[in-house]
Amino acid sequence: MDYLKLLGLAAGTITSITFLPQVIQIYKTKSARDISINMLALLILGVSMWLVYGIFVKDVAIIYTNSMVLTMSLIMLYFKWRFK
Amino acid sequence: MDYLKLLGLAAGTITSITFLPQVIQIYKTKSARDISINMLALLILGVSMWLVYGIFVKDVAIIYTNSMVLTMSLIMLYFKWRFK
Repeated sequence: MDYLKLLGLAAGTITSITFLPQVIQIYKTKSARDISINMLALLILGVSMWLVYGIFVKDVAIIYTNSMVLTMSLIMLYFKWRFK
Repeated sequence: MDYLKLLGLAAGTITSITFLPQVIQIYKTKSARDISINMLALLILGVSMWLVYGIFVKDVAIIYTNSMVLTMSLIMLYFKWRFK
């Protein structure tokens, strides 16, 4: 595997776990007041489109990364509604 | 231009403006308490790697999208430090 592919894989791995600390923090503090609902809406819309794109171009990295971010986004949306 | 390319472009455009409402909300409320600093660190690291990747593969969409997200992330990091 070349260095470029490795860089792409590493970047995808980091992106896929980016929102995990945010999910954990909201769960612990039970507060999501400072999280923008419009940011969440755009995030969910954007990664859903990337997911469809990834399925069409059959790119496993795009599918994996965006499935992870979509999952975290939906949990954050639920928390935003739950904890206000 | 085919539909798939259009979908990728639309997804990239939405992703590039995803954090703008978050930046505006923090600026207005002067509060970033609920924003996870670890999320910001991973976001900045991830998009920086995507940016380098985009430069190497000469993909304008990847470079544009990640430059935008990196800019917003750095503003959020500054706000996190500024407003606590």
